Amino acid sequence: MPQFMDVHKSMKGVTPEQLAAAHQADLDLQGEEGVNFKQAWADPKTGHVFCLSEAPDAEAVQHLLERAGHKADEVHEIMITA
Amino acid sequence: MPQFMDVHKSMKGVTPEQLAAAHQADLDLQGEEGVNFKQAWADPKTGHVFCLSEAPDAEAVQHLLERAGHKADEVHEIMITA
Repeated sequence: MPQFMDVHKSMKGVTPEQLAAAHQADLDLQGEEGVNFKQAWADPKTGHVFCLSEAPDAEAVQHLLERAGHKADEVHEIMITA
Repeated sequence: MPQFMDVHKSMKGVTPEQLAAAHQADLDLQGEEGVNFKQAWADPKTGHVFCLSEAPDAEAVQHLLERAGHKADEVHEIMITA
């Protein structure tokens, strides 16, 4: 299954509770979209959030994120890891 | 130990061998800088590479990356995970 890193850039000041709620909203939908979210990392100072997932394609990730109310600014397909 | 996500945006076409070599260059220096690189994810199509590390501060990450010959475009301090 391909892996994806989606990036959100406008989450300045996000709290642990807000990130947990956003992540849970993704998890609640992922079965319907064939997506498997693995982890999320947030920097509240710069407002960046990075989420790693497995999914059939980038469109499935973005479609799920739109349904959850937080469309990503970027979705990158991870072809290589090290 | 704080965690950091550094982002490189100009690595279009990066190959598995190039990413492995760049990652190894980081690993070779990390003991001297007090940094612990955990994983790297690359999207050769968009040229984005994301690297997760533990380090004393963002400056230590960037200083190491400069020494390794590939300064990051951004270094985000990960204050929250989910």
